[in-house]
Amino acid sequence: MVNVGVLGATGAVGQRFIQLLSEHDEFELTTVTASPESAGDTYREAAKWRVDTPIPEDVATLEVRETDPDAIPDDVDLLFSSLPSSVAERVEHGFCEAGYVVSSNSSNERTADDVPLVIPEVNADHLDLIEVQRDERGWDGALVKNPNCSTITMVPTLAALDAFGLDTVHVATLQAVSGAGYSGVTSMEILDNVLPHIGGEESKMESESRKLLGEFTGAEVDWHDVDVSASCNRVPTLDGHLENVWAELDDDPTVEAVVDAFEDAASQDLPSAPDPLIHVFEEPDRPQPRLDRMLGGGMAVAAGGVQQTESGIQYNTLAHNTIRGAAGASVLNGELLARDGWL
Amino acid sequence: MVNVGVLGATGAVGQRFIQLLSEHDEFELTTVTASPESAGDTYREAAKWRVDTPIPEDVATLEVRETDPDAIPDDVDLLFSSLPSSVAERVEHGFCEAGYVVSSNSSNERTADDVPLVIPEVNADHLDLIEVQRDERGWDGALVKNPNCSTITMVPTLAALDAFGLDTVHVATLQAVSGAGYSGVTSMEILDNVLPHIGGEESKMESESRKLLGEFTGAEVDWHDVDVSASCNRVPTLDGHLENVWAELDDDPTVEAVVDAFEDAASQDLPSAPDPLIHVFEEPDRPQPRLDRMLGGGMAVAAGGVQQTESGIQYNTLAHNTIRGAAGASVLNGELLARDGWL
Amino acid sequence: MVNVGVLGATGAVGQRFIQLLSEHDEFELTTVTASPESAGDTYREAAKWRVDTPIPEDVATLEVRETDPDAIPDDVDLLFSSLPSSVAERVEHGFCEAGYVVSSNSSNERTADDVPLVIPEVNADHLDLIEVQRDERGWDGALVKNPNCSTITMVPTLAALDAFGLDTVHVATLQAVSGAGYSGVTSMEILDNVLPHIGGEESKMESESRKLLGEFTGAEVDWHDVDVSASCNRVPTLDGHLENVWAELDDDPTVEAVVDAFEDAASQDLPSAPDPLIHVFEEPDRPQPRLDRMLGGGMAVAAGGVQQTESGIQYNTLAHNTIRGAAGASVLNGELLARDGWL
Amino acid sequence: MVNVGVLGATGAVGQRFIQLLSEHDEFELTTVTASPESAGDTYREAAKWRVDTPIPEDVATLEVRETDPDAIPDDVDLLFSSLPSSVAERVEHGFCEAGYVVSSNSSNERTADDVPLVIPEVNADHLDLIEVQRDERGWDGALVKNPNCSTITMVPTLAALDAFGLDTVHVATLQAVSGAGYSGVTSMEILDNVLPHIGGEESKMESESRKLLGEFTGAEVDWHDVDVSASCNRVPTLDGHLENVWAELDDDPTVEAVVDAFEDAASQDLPSAPDPLIHVFEEPDRPQPRLDRMLGGGMAVAAGGVQQTESGIQYNTLAHNTIRGAAGASVLNGELLARDGWL
Repeated sequence: MVNVGVLGATGAVGQRFIQLLSEHDEFELTTVTASPESAGDTYREAAKWRVDTPIPEDVATLEVRETDPDAIPDDVDLLFSSLPSSVAERVEHGFCEAGYVVSSNSSNERTADDVPLVIPEVNADHLDLIEVQRDERGWDGALVKNPNCSTITMVPTLAALDAFGLDTVHVATLQAVSGAGYSGVTSMEILDNVLPHIGGEESKMESESRKLLGEFTGAEVDWHDVDVSASCNRVPTLDGHLENVWAELDDDPTVEAVVDAFEDAASQDLPSAPDPLIHVFEEPDRPQPRLDRMLGGGMAVAAGGVQQTESGIQYNTLAHNTIRGAAGASVLNGELLARDGWL
Repeated sequence: MVNVGVLGATGAVGQRFIQLLSEHDEFELTTVTASPESAGDTYREAAKWRVDTPIPEDVATLEVRETDPDAIPDDVDLLFSSLPSSVAERVEHGFCEAGYVVSSNSSNERTADDVPLVIPEVNADHLDLIEVQRDERGWDGALVKNPNCSTITMVPTLAALDAFGLDTVHVATLQAVSGAGYSGVTSMEILDNVLPHIGGEESKMESESRKLLGEFTGAEVDWHDVDVSASCNRVPTLDGHLENVWAELDDDPTVEAVVDAFEDAASQDLPSAPDPLIHVFEEPDRPQPRLDRMLGGGMAVAAGGVQQTESGIQYNTLAHNTIRGAAGASVLNGELLARDGWL
Repeated sequence: MVNVGVLGATGAVGQRFIQLLSEHDEFELTTVTASPESAGDTYREAAKWRVDTPIPEDVATLEVRETDPDAIPDDVDLLFSSLPSSVAERVEHGFCEAGYVVSSNSSNERTADDVPLVIPEVNADHLDLIEVQRDERGWDGALVKNPNCSTITMVPTLAALDAFGLDTVHVATLQAVSGAGYSGVTSMEILDNVLPHIGGEESKMESESRKLLGEFTGAEVDWHDVDVSASCNRVPTLDGHLENVWAELDDDPTVEAVVDAFEDAASQDLPSAPDPLIHVFEEPDRPQPRLDRMLGGGMAVAAGGVQQTESGIQYNTLAHNTIRGAAGASVLNGELLARDGWL
Repeated sequence: MVNVGVLGATGAVGQRFIQLLSEHDEFELTTVTASPESAGDTYREAAKWRVDTPIPEDVATLEVRETDPDAIPDDVDLLFSSLPSSVAERVEHGFCEAGYVVSSNSSNERTADDVPLVIPEVNADHLDLIEVQRDERGWDGALVKNPNCSTITMVPTLAALDAFGLDTVHVATLQAVSGAGYSGVTSMEILDNVLPHIGGEESKMESESRKLLGEFTGAEVDWHDVDVSASCNRVPTLDGHLENVWAELDDDPTVEAVVDAFEDAASQDLPSAPDPLIHVFEEPDRPQPRLDRMLGGGMAVAAGGVQQTESGIQYNTLAHNTIRGAAGASVLNGELLARDGWL
């Protein structure tokens, strides 16, 4: 068992980390941190638990520590981070300098040249960028990022389509409110309504997708030249981002060929990795957020409505935004870091 | 005042017709029809009134008639139809043969060669197709259609963009539940959920748009060759269809030029026509369904989030689906029919 | 293992039966029935599966049978029924005459003199009314009912309070849409709305509670004389009925005494019975439907907000309406029937 | 025309004040205040306008002033306040000392001995308590309060029932999210959920009702001795509080007598006062929040489902919580202050 900790463990994504790690087969959650005013409290006292499964008893009694390398036990080998992006860079650097390996869901530095941005089933080899990072930054630790929730929902399918010559992508997102954090969207904003704009989200989808689909040369990542144009909407769902995707392809694959490519997308042999990675529905009205977000324990990607267009294909894709799209993504990267010997 | 009637007046769209016509300056609502079992009841008895303004008193006491030309008073000069498409064709033909002019929201025959499909601000001249229709069908009356609610939401903006050489359109819709009628979407389908498929909707948007933007030669409509690819979703909103649009254009207009084109889109001098036709928001998070669907009394189109992409522009558009997108659209066509001397 | 079947297995409650029975330790689900037009199809074909866990594979391939005693295999010893009340009486009688034991969730005959209405943790001894039933009706089989979902949510707490002299109850319900079946509440009825009336619900709560809390004399049930006054509302939640209860009591117990009585309510030693039966929250803002409906696998009752009033106590109670309040209630009654030797 | 101002004009209730006052027949809105950082901005700049009608143009261009008596023009004769209760007492006292009459929706001091708590149709005569207030506090101005939104929804019906000897009230509320202010309830708290607790709300309903229904002796208000026991819930509706009420009465009136008492409740001859005050529905499933909250321009109270119980009657009542229950309540009190010569 690897001893692990969660930085910023009381927030919405932090609580998902707790839920996922409390029954993990390879990770032992020994350490949780929060802001200084919570330090010394038990986790039960510090966190207003809002997940729909009870708070795990062994975590509830953990003492909350300060988010500081000096406050972390020496035997912790891996840290998960869901810090607000406003403070994440400073804090994460401190931990990496102190020798910790950090698997982070925070949005800072995702597109930095020497920071691996990884979805294990898509670009596990990008992890070797850690060598470059350690050289450049003089760290004993390492910083690895997973992409934004709306990017993760789409990229596994794009990776599968790249065999047909991925050229241009239009994507409209219908994103759940949990993606904005517990207080990110007020009830008066979203009841009987849609918000047709999510600040910064469109450009994240455009750049992160290109980096994820890029090729690691041994020294850097050559970004894919796919042109992604995103339109992002917040809708009144709790969990599960649904996306309408149009992909223009160099080749002209049949629907069957595309479905095969999706279904054949390689899984990874990691504890949290779903198999299959992509679940394809034949029914045109699936996937639906409430019915399908928990496929593969919330770690699978669902696709459906595949059809040909004039210049490519059109389909829908869905993933659980706080599991596959956030806490689960970091945990999966942590499992990859462990398997590949980076801890 | 023109005496008018509503065929199928008790349903969801029928109730919107009542609401719009009860205070109309040029139309006097004298006649309402429903299924035979309601004939003889007052409208108040026959309709389970569900609009959020009280039932108009003068309509409440109207006697409901059978949906049959023989049951209609002779002095009625214009009929509005919101019949279910399964029966609409047969019934509407009967009224047209009997000499009535019918402004219909039903989906049948919208793309028929000799049936005008009209948005007054976009293609009022298509109304002259009535001449062809009367020749071919031997009718004294006439049948005029308005497009589907999701089509209407988008086409006024596309018409404005056609000056820049409209080539290809991708559109994702986030449609309100009222578009499916009062019982069309159950609560268990849509609470905390999105339905990523609306049967037949995508092809309606693709074909109706091409006919509406086409050119009337005097004998027929030459459809526009724009390639429209739609992805239609039902979301948990009550009224107001929001659409994310990408338009590829031959020219390369600036955002300012596009906004100008939207704001300069010609209005019509008709009682229900909004001025301006298109309301453009600068704020990127507008239009929103709940806040903006009632612009122009529910007859305006709202646009926002205009930005350039690699090959054209991207924006959002919104309209009230049961006013501008259904009952109000038919009323507006009725006003055009009256003004242009077809009654 | 007892071989069991589900009558009317394709509806909303039917699907919950399938979900609960597919992994049951003592029951083997071998038989599913539906309307004649589905007979011969596989269950996968006949049911439009809408539960948020995948359809169990072994059930998906079962052949759907007609809802007729002649169509049921001889080795089936227990049938669960979630038939519409319009047909349930006739059909259930047919099965009971043919010798089957039926554990039914349908609302017919719940208050009949010779039909046991049972919540195992509350009045398991009422099951002996089967003797009377068999005498009077000449059946080899038996018919046992569970109460209405809104009744079940409240009665376990009332039973615990009866030690303090239960006199009068006022209860306001906030009921989830699933209680009305898959199509029972339309989206246009409930989005941004509350329905302050559920036909027949108030009187069910008033009479069923009195029968459940009554005393079985060996020949009949003497109904409890508690006066229950209910006000029933439908709110925009998917699952989980929340109820505000005021109980006037002969004694004047402290809050602590009431909490103790709730927490000490006896559980039953049955596979689906939760332990504890009643989960008491200290936080005044719990239980909440979405967070707490799955306590005890959806079979527990949650209570909170206990406080004294002038004449008794006031509190909130919550249960999952389609598990503890419907399919799970029937399954639990089936387990009791099996344990007590009625099969 | 009386020149009026709104203190704290940019919040949710503040925006309702703007909407109601911008077209008022007797009040001219000349002054809006907000926090110091907004002072000097136009109202359009300072307020993030979220009402579903466009921002009134003449208010949009008003300069926002500091919430300070020195910043208010001399010709303003009446101020409306929707300040947060944390600062309201200090600020309101400052204005009253400076000679202003303040009609306040803030919750502080509602039950103070010398502060009139008024619903004009219920207890207009309590306004004379201003004499006592001026004596005791040495103010030239005056401070008048309207009750909490959940109290206002119920008290007009209780006042009508008092003729039958009002003894005990049980009330369960189903309150809309707007009652908590724009950011008071997050989307993650309320989607597919109910919150069974609203801090302080139950005791407000209990004490404010007794003061409102009390008798003004000329020197003080003798509180009514009705025993009110409230259970307050937040539900996923935007506007409109629905309440289930049980009233135990000394007399035993028929349903017809109660309906008559409701329908005969005296209206007031004030610009914003609805006539009738109470709209009674015969249909048991009305009033409903979305359909009926705008009755009387949002100022009427709706009642329905009246039925007899063992010891009194039971019914439902509904009012628009931010119009009749907040901004409209203060405006109505302002109209009463003007008519009765207190300005």
